[in-house]
Order: sequence, then structure tokens, then C-alpha cells
Amino acid sequence: MSSLESDKAMSPKLTVELLRQLRLAMKNCKYFSEPIQAYIIPSGDAHQSEYIAPCDCRREFICGFNGSAGTAIVTEQHAAMWTDGRYFLQASQQMDNNWTLMKMGLKETPSQEDWLISVLPENSKVGVDPWIIAADQWKNMSKALAGAGHSLVAVQDNLIDAVWLDRPQRPSTQLMTLGLERTGMSWQDKITALRAKMRERKINWFVATALDEIAWLFNLRGSDIEYNPVFFAYSVVGMKTIRLFVDLKRLEDPAVRQHLQLDAPSRPELSIQASPYEAVHTELQAVCAALGPKDKVWICDKAGCALTQVIPKTHRSQISYTPLCLAKAVKNATEIQGMKTAHIKDAVALCELFAWLEKEIPKGTVTEISSADKAEDFRSQQKDFVGLSFPSISSVGPNGAIIHYRPLPETNRTLSLNEVYLLDSGAQYKDGTTDVTRTVHFGTPSAYEKECFTYVLKGHIAVSAAIFPNGTKGHLLDSFARAALWEAGLDYLHGTGHGVGCFLNVHEGPCGISYKTFADEPLEAGMIVSDEPGYYEDGSFGIRIENVVLVVPSKPKYNYMNRGSLTFEPLTLVPMQVKMMNTDMLTQKERDWVNDYHRQCMETVGAELRRQGRKEALDWLIRETQPIA
Amino acid sequence: MSSLESDKAMSPKLTVELLRQLRLAMKNCKYFSEPIQAYIIPSGDAHQSEYIAPCDCRREFICGFNGSAGTAIVTEQHAAMWTDGRYFLQASQQMDNNWTLMKMGLKETPSQEDWLISVLPENSKVGVDPWIIAADQWKNMSKALAGAGHSLVAVQDNLIDAVWLDRPQRPSTQLMTLGLERTGMSWQDKITALRAKMRERKINWFVATALDEIAWLFNLRGSDIEYNPVFFAYSVVGMKTIRLFVDLKRLEDPAVRQHLQLDAPSRPELSIQASPYEAVHTELQAVCAALGPKDKVWICDKAGCALTQVIPKTHRSQISYTPLCLAKAVKNATEIQGMKTAHIKDAVALCELFAWLEKEIPKGTVTEISSADKAEDFRSQQKDFVGLSFPSISSVGPNGAIIHYRPLPETNRTLSLNEVYLLDSGAQYKDGTTDVTRTVHFGTPSAYEKECFTYVLKGHIAVSAAIFPNGTKGHLLDSFARAALWEAGLDYLHGTGHGVGCFLNVHEGPCGISYKTFADEPLEAGMIVSDEPGYYEDGSFGIRIENVVLVVPSKPKYNYMNRGSLTFEPLTLVPMQVKMMNTDMLTQKERDWVNDYHRQCMETVGAELRRQGRKEALDWLIRETQPIA
Repeated sequence: MSSLESDKAMSPKLTVELLRQLRLAMKNCKYFSEPIQAYIIPSGDAHQSEYIAPCDCRREFICGFNGSAGTAIVTEQHAAMWTDGRYFLQASQQMDNNWTLMKMGLKETPSQEDWLISVLPENSKVGVDPWIIAADQWKNMSKALAGAGHSLVAVQDNLIDAVWLDRPQRPSTQLMTLGLERTGMSWQDKITALRAKMRERKINWFVATALDEIAWLFNLRGSDIEYNPVFFAYSVVGMKTIRLFVDLKRLEDPAVRQHLQLDAPSRPELSIQASPYEAVHTELQAVCAALGPKDKVWICDKAGCALTQVIPKTHRSQISYTPLCLAKAVKNATEIQGMKTAHIKDAVALCELFAWLEKEIPKGTVTEISSADKAEDFRSQQKDFVGLSFPSISSVGPNGAIIHYRPLPETNRTLSLNEVYLLDSGAQYKDGTTDVTRTVHFGTPSAYEKECFTYVLKGHIAVSAAIFPNGTKGHLLDSFARAALWEAGLDYLHGTGHGVGCFLNVHEGPCGISYKTFADEPLEAGMIVSDEPGYYEDGSFGIRIENVVLVVPSKPKYNYMNRGSLTFEPLTLVPMQVKMMNTDMLTQKERDWVNDYHRQCMETVGAELRRQGRKEALDWLIRETQPIA
Repeated sequence: MSSLESDKAMSPKLTVELLRQLRLAMKNCKYFSEPIQAYIIPSGDAHQSEYIAPCDCRREFICGFNGSAGTAIVTEQHAAMWTDGRYFLQASQQMDNNWTLMKMGLKETPSQEDWLISVLPENSKVGVDPWIIAADQWKNMSKALAGAGHSLVAVQDNLIDAVWLDRPQRPSTQLMTLGLERTGMSWQDKITALRAKMRERKINWFVATALDEIAWLFNLRGSDIEYNPVFFAYSVVGMKTIRLFVDLKRLEDPAVRQHLQLDAPSRPELSIQASPYEAVHTELQAVCAALGPKDKVWICDKAGCALTQVIPKTHRSQISYTPLCLAKAVKNATEIQGMKTAHIKDAVALCELFAWLEKEIPKGTVTEISSADKAEDFRSQQKDFVGLSFPSISSVGPNGAIIHYRPLPETNRTLSLNEVYLLDSGAQYKDGTTDVTRTVHFGTPSAYEKECFTYVLKGHIAVSAAIFPNGTKGHLLDSFARAALWEAGLDYLHGTGHGVGCFLNVHEGPCGISYKTFADEPLEAGMIVSDEPGYYEDGSFGIRIENVVLVVPSKPKYNYMNRGSLTFEPLTLVPMQVKMMNTDMLTQKERDWVNDYHRQCMETVGAELRRQGRKEALDWLIRETQPIA
């Protein structure tokens, strides 16, 4: 994704002039009654999106660092940027010496609050764009600053935009309507279900700010943000009102008008009032001005501060996960079928890729970039392909040990018969979203590489085959993925799984599998998560085995307290390379799991390869799914 | 423990007159400027102890319910008591119909805050004893009430005490001094280490309120609270000052005076200023009045509200776990040796008990109560025995399914050859604290009982044998204990382990093994926890297998990022009944673990039984530790 992870060479951005202009803006009383002594530039957009559009890459613009996580703070004297361990090297290469890199996670690195307090003169004002900072972050920062005699102030005009002369336009791509055959539930029924949840909790209004929730609610997709089929919008839903805030030009499309019943709503309470994207603030003010004394408005605690503060405190009900986030996470039968179809097509493309790689690698012409491009090419031949679901991590040998690696021309390594190859990639199809990682060797892996691969495989299987009670939170399964690695003294420093959207964001809440005990919601049948343990040996190789798996009911021997049990069903159906396994290290149960999984790959993907007449890939699949003894 | 779990028959306490008097007190302006409309009576004492002394059983006094957890609230019209699922039956039997039982955990049960808001007239005042309510609870309750127009007020005189005419005296038992041979570290060195931590965090004063922390700090023990070798005290430690608040009569003992160097302190900064227990409030006020503008005072966020609020907010630094709690959890070499010795003696007593039970049960004369008494009798014959560490859970057949069962005359069941027997018991010795559960059958267990026992055993072994990285939190190991049960559709509804003190409380923070992701601290070598998975079949039987285990370094094949690895070493050395195992269900690794464990029991406890000349128990041990094939 060019805006976030640019392909350009890593020379630092020159920021002297930019910082001078920003500091002028910080004193310019056009923007506020009194000058501010510091300005915070967070990473995100007004919807707290994980991936952002070029027009929202303000932190990159001001400091040059284009990683996915980082916060810049500029004072009259200093400029500092906080990021985490994944990005220390990249940030130090992309920022010039006007900037101090603040390495998060190191003991000696101060928090943003502590640093501000240490450098600011007394009674300082610290500015931030209230649209971009999340309500919970505002609260923490504001409290910390107030405790030291400073104050956090909302600066309505974004000061970066003020100095960013060639800032790109906010995208307004064509909207795609999804019918019942794709969504399984009309937007009208989703509205009705939302209102039922609101009634149950005595809530009168709900403010939707997350782009994937709005896309899901209205059964619409866009392409405003690369890899994420979403569009810029807000929605405010009351018991009799539906307000949609979006660039009105997008609603001129007859298909969209008809889909949303803009011209002839079936029932008055299902009539959508469309307003410009920018009107959300004033319109929400109007809604709040008309609230009854006991009326309550729901908004996510991670929503932007500006919108959150429009709702008077006594009427505000902040929640960690919105009812849309929870409903979206549990896929219905149509969505599950769509996800299955998408994963079969995705497997076809990967079988083709691996068969092709086997042929081409010996010629020495395949690189990390060309392999990723070829994978995209094969995927794009599949029906209803829309695009990739994230930038492919295509990494050879030592590059595989960089967990968030993305090949750049200057790091691009050639695939060979001597090194481990890790490919973590996925796509958006109109019927579903995929995300799969396979780690393979095209020559002869070393005993140590096989040993490590097998620990990771044991972890993958331990999660995938786990049976657990209904209501179990995903974080309770994380250690299953690590037990075999831990026994050998090894580990990996990332979570084991994330929620996956259905033709939506490849990362979504509210469930996941991680040692970090964030407030994940219990797993339930119909949820879809990834299972992706790994092992990374700095300077040598990286291993990750990732399937997307569906939570399904399980029927073990007993049923304690009638709670019911759950397990996982793999949606990803791409063989795991037996050559990388030390099968002596596997238990009989694990061997059975591998054989059973490969039988499913062969049956399901083999049939599709046959149907599509892709002979070479079929031969490859047949060979790669031979049972192990 | 008679005050908490009385042996008296379960007839409800008559509370009409008591409630009338309490309500009079709630209007009596002797206690406050304006009458209060509700009064909260929490369970605990001013030190937030888990077990409490008879004089602190105020909630039991007012409502009759004597379980370990519950909060009573009395308004002008209503009286309600909140407790959890363990106690629904007991509470309903012990309370008369002036009380409403509030069943916590049920959807329809309101929280205390919500209930108060629903029943109180506008602008009500809700009173509570600020010494007993913890600071964090005060904060939550106060906020909720304020949001509804009410206020929480601190009532300095406890209103229960005002109507409790025959309230017992606060105990003031003789203090026991522990020398270096027991503690491994002088109290002077502990003070110095505490001050180093304070200096590191720029803290000027530390307020100790937890009784076990104070006992540990000063290497003193008492017997003010049954099962817990602690004494009522507070301590306030500054960089040059040590203040101890305790009944001054206890310091007249020459041994204690010498131990604390009261008459001839070695260095001025190690001189202890003793003051009466009750003086802590005014003395802390004096300390706070003399604070410099940047001075900070450390206090646990679970300390009583009254003492916490003495410290002005700008000087207050509240922490989840105090440095004493953290230091106490990591046992030194002397404490570890003491714990090992205590566990060997404890195993001797249990070997004797089980040998004796085998002989006696066929006669039909052994009951749950007499078996527990016999266990205590055998333990008391061991050197340095002080008392039990908690009330024995001695349960036969269906009683075993009641997790917090304690035999009462009216529930007392006879041990037989036909039912499973679960004994969870432990003792305080001057060198250490024990806690062990064994589940046995004296006839022939059913295939189902064996199956369930074996799942629990697999879970016990999975935790005990787990290897995990340094820095792992205990809650990440909880699922290991459940995996085998989950696979069969079974589970247990309690945590897997708790921290264990060294001749201190049998339950202590800050580490544990639980699916509840409380803020546990990472495990480190020297910590001691229990490993106690179980399975409970209502109306039939209960199974639990509990060892106390020591966290020790482990040396697996690799050492990822030089983090080092840990595992557990069982301190408990009592055979697990092979008769209860379905050994076909065990893997070879698990069988090896059982045989290895039994070999250790035989070697270590066998030698001690020989030394003590306890022949029958030795024969029993030899038979019970025969290797399985």
C-alpha cells in the first residue's frame, strides 16, 4: 500500500521548512484564541481505521515515517515521534535529524504525556485534532496534562492540512451494492436487529463511526482505502430515523438509490436521510438538542473525540464494542458459504502459484516481489476478485524473520533452492476475504528448520483442533499455540489470531487469539478468526502457518452444564508442506490431523482445479496431499 | 473456622430488632450531621483480609449469613444481601424474611449501585464505614451514586458496632519472632530493600495495611485470625522512619523488644517508633502534613478508603501490588527450604491418615469430620506444627461436588468403600504453609469416576510439567489444566491455582493461575502456587488433585532471545491414587511423570517415615508409589 508502506527508497524526508510552517501555524490565532505550545499528530483517521487513505497520512507527511503505527508531537523546540519495535529501523531511516525517535517499549523511553510534561513551559496548551484522537485517548492525555498544570485543547482546523499544500482529496469511489445472495440479510433487517438491541438496553440513538460497520450495515462496499472495501461515511440511527452521512454524489448512482430505497422507502422508519459527510457534527448536535431527559446515545469508546463530545455526558453511553461490531463478527449461513467459496478460489490460485514457483525458481528469476505479483495475478483470474486484502508479505530467508516485512526493491531477495520462503497474503473477493500464510522450501530444508516448522505446526494444530466450552474467550487458547515451542525454549512475539471480515477488513474485532488480554468477546459459532503461530530466527528465516478458521459447534462425549462446546473448521485449504515437517516429532493425533486436512484440501480444491482445468496445479495438489505414514 | 462457617444448625437469625436498632442509628445525629437513608455493611476488615476475626464479622451479625463473601445493605424500608453462587442455599437458610437475598451472577439481579438507585428517595445519603470499604470500591460506588443524585458518605463510627452489644474484643495474641534461620532475611534488610524500591520510584513514604505484608516485613507472626498467622497492625515506612501501629501491650514481651531492637536500634534509620493500632490515622495525617510539594506516598489501591483519603491526592500513588507483596511472593532459599521441610512433614501426616483410613473405613466409623480431625491430629504430631491453614474440605460422594464444602454435623457423611473421598487440607508449620488435595476411592471406583479423575490428572500434569518463558503470567497456563476436560466436554468452574505464603496466608497475591484475567504479575523463579484442577458432578462426586508447586528455572534445548524458561517443581509429595487412574488414557509422557513423581514421594517422604519410625504409613507409601506400566 503505497501511502503507508512506500516503495520509495529509505532516504529521510527533509522537514526543516515543514516544521517551521507548522510552528507558525501553532502561533496563528486564526486557529485558536491563544497559541498552543505543542501539537499532537496521531496516526489514524476520523474513523480509527487500521489502514488509512493518502489524505489522512498526516503523520507521514510531517515526519517522513510511513509505518502503520506512530504518533508525532511537535513543540516550539522539539519534534518527537513514538513508534514500536517493528519500526525502529525504518523510522530512523525515514526521519531527518529534526526528529527524535521515541522507541516505545524500551524502559528509558518516556510516554508522550511524561515527555510533554518534561519539555513544556508552565501552563502550556497542547493541541490535537479532536476528530482523529479517540475519545479514550483524549481522556487519558487530558487527565495527565491537567495533573501537571497544562491543558489539552481541541484544534478544529487540522494544522497539518494547513501546511500540506498538495494534500490529496478524500477519496469518493463508486459504491458497490450487495444483494441478499451475498449478505444473507438485508440492511433493513440489520437496522431492525440493531433497534431491537437498542430497545433492550434502553438506548435511543446509535452513532456508527467505524467504516467497516457502516459498510456492513448498509450492505455497501467502496474502495476509498486500499485493501479495505469501505467508504467514508457516518451513520446515526434512531428508533424511527436513519441518517447516512456520505459524499452525496455517491448516491446519484441509480443502483445505490434503489438499494437504499432512497426514492421509495418501504416503510417510514426505514427511510434513509442522506446528508453530506461533513454534516455529521451539526446534525448530531441537532439530534442531541432534541433528546428527552432520559434518552441515551450509544457510541464506541474508540470513536473520535469530536463526535463523542457532541453527545452530552448524561446522555452518552460509551461501549467497547458496538452492537454492529458484535453482529458483524458472527457470520450468517450466506456469509459462511461465501467465505468458503472465496477460500476455495484462493486455494486454487495458491496451488497454481506453488506449482509455478517449483518450475521457475531453479531458473533464478523469481524474486519476493515477482512471486507476490504472480500470486496476485493468479488470484485476479478467479471469479469476483476485487483486490488484495493487505500488502503481501513475501519473504525469503532472513527477510522472513521480519514479521511485518514487505519486499521493497532494495530488499528484494531471489527465491532459491537454499532458503525458506514465507508468503503471507490474501484477497478480497465479492463473496469473502482471505488471509493465508505458508512456509515452504524448494530444496532441502535443514533439520533445524524442519524442527522449528514442526513446533509451529504443532501449535497450529493444537489451536485448530481444540475443543472448548461455549463462551470461551479467544485469549484462553493462545497458549495452546505456544506449548510445543515453549517446551523447546522458543516463542513468537505476536498474537495467534485476529477476527476476519466477510468481504470486509482482514482484521476485525471483537474476537481474537492473543496472549495480550485485551477485552475480547467470547468466541461463538459463526465467528471467523485466523490461526497463525510462527517462529522467527533473526538473520536466518521466518516460519508462520496461517489458516482462517470458522468457529463451529462440536459434540464431545459429554456436555457439562449443557454449555455446549465449540471447535474450529479450517476455511483455508492449501496444503502445508510435508517436506518441512519432521513427522517423527508428530503424535499420531497430529499426523491424523495433517492427513485429514490434506484430504479435505484434495477433495475440495482438487474438484475446483479439475473444474477450472488447471492441470499442473492439480498435479501439484495431488502430490502435496499424499498422506504421511 | 467457627466465626465464618459456623457449626450451628442452619436456622435463620431473627433480625427484626437488630434492624430496628440499626435504622434508629441511621437517623441518630450523634453519628453524622444529617441522617443517612442507607447503610452498606461489607464483608471485610480494615485490612481487606480474606479471613476475618470474630469482632469483624459485622455482616454476619446483622443478617445471620456467615459465608466468606457477601455485602449487606440496609435502607429505611429494605434489607438486602448480595452473595455469589457458592452461597445461595446457605444464605437463604441463615437469613430471615426481613432480608432479600441478591443472587450475584444471575441476569435479573441488580448491582448494589443499581438497586440503591432504584429504591432510594431523591438526594439520598448512603453511609459506609470508610475503614472497611476499599479505596477502589469507594470510588466506583461513589461515582455511581453521584451520577444518580445521591452521595456516598463516610460514617466514622461503625453503626453495626453501635448496636452490637456483645461484640468480641479485637484479638491481641502473643507475637512470635522469626529469626534468620526461618526467614532468610532480617527485617532490617527487608526495610532497606523496600526503601531501595521507593528510591527507584521516587516515593517518600509507604503505607502497609495488609496483615500478611506487615507480618512478613517484620518477621513476626501472630494468631489474631484463625488459620492466618498474622496480627492486627499498620506500618508506615519513610526513608528515615519506621512506624509500627500495634497494640502496645504486645511489645512488652522481651523477645519481641529485642527482635525489633526497640531499646537499642542498630542504626537511627532502623529505629522503630511504635504507636497504638488506633493511632495510624492521626499519625499518617501528621506525616502527610509535613510532606514536601513533590513528595509521594505509596498505598495499595485495595487499602481501606479512610486511610487512603488521609493522603492528599497530589501526593498519593496507588498501586495494585505493593513492593512488599511482590517481594514476599518470591521466596528466598531459606523459605524454599522451609516450605520443602513443611511439605515433607505434611506428607508424612497424610500417608499416616490414608493408611489409617484404609484400616478404619471398613468398620463404618469414619466420617468426614472424624477424618478431618484425624488428619489434624497426625499433622499436629509433626515438628513446629502451628495449626491448620484453612478449614479442611473433607467430603464424601455428592458432598465432594460442593466446591467450598465444609462438613457440618447435619451434612456429615460416613466414608465407605462405595464413594469417592475428596480431602483438601493444609497446615501452618513454623517453616512453611501447606495445601494439598487428594481424591481417593477405598473400594472400586466406577469407570466413569476413573475417566473423570484421569482428565483432571492430565490437566494437573499439563500445568506441573509445562515449560514456559520467563515473564509469563500465570493466567496463560490456565487452559493447559482444562484441555483434556474440554476435549471430553467437561470443565470446572474455579481457577487452577493461587499463590501460597511461607508460614503465612495460604492464599496470597500477586500471582495465580486462572481463566479470570485479573492483573496477575508474571511468574518468576521462587514463587509458589497451587496446581489444582478439578471436576465436579452435582449429586455424585467431586474430584480435585492439588499440589503446591515451586516455580524453578528450566533448561530446554533452546533459549529464545535469552529470556530463559521456567517450570514447576512439586513441593507436595503425597501419592496420587493409581486406582483412580485409567492408565490407558495417559500418554507415555504422562505415565513417566506419574512414576517420576511417585519415585520422589517414595525417596523423600519414605526416608522421613523411616526416620520417624512410622511403619504402617511407610508400607502404605511403598505400595502406593509402585510404578505404573
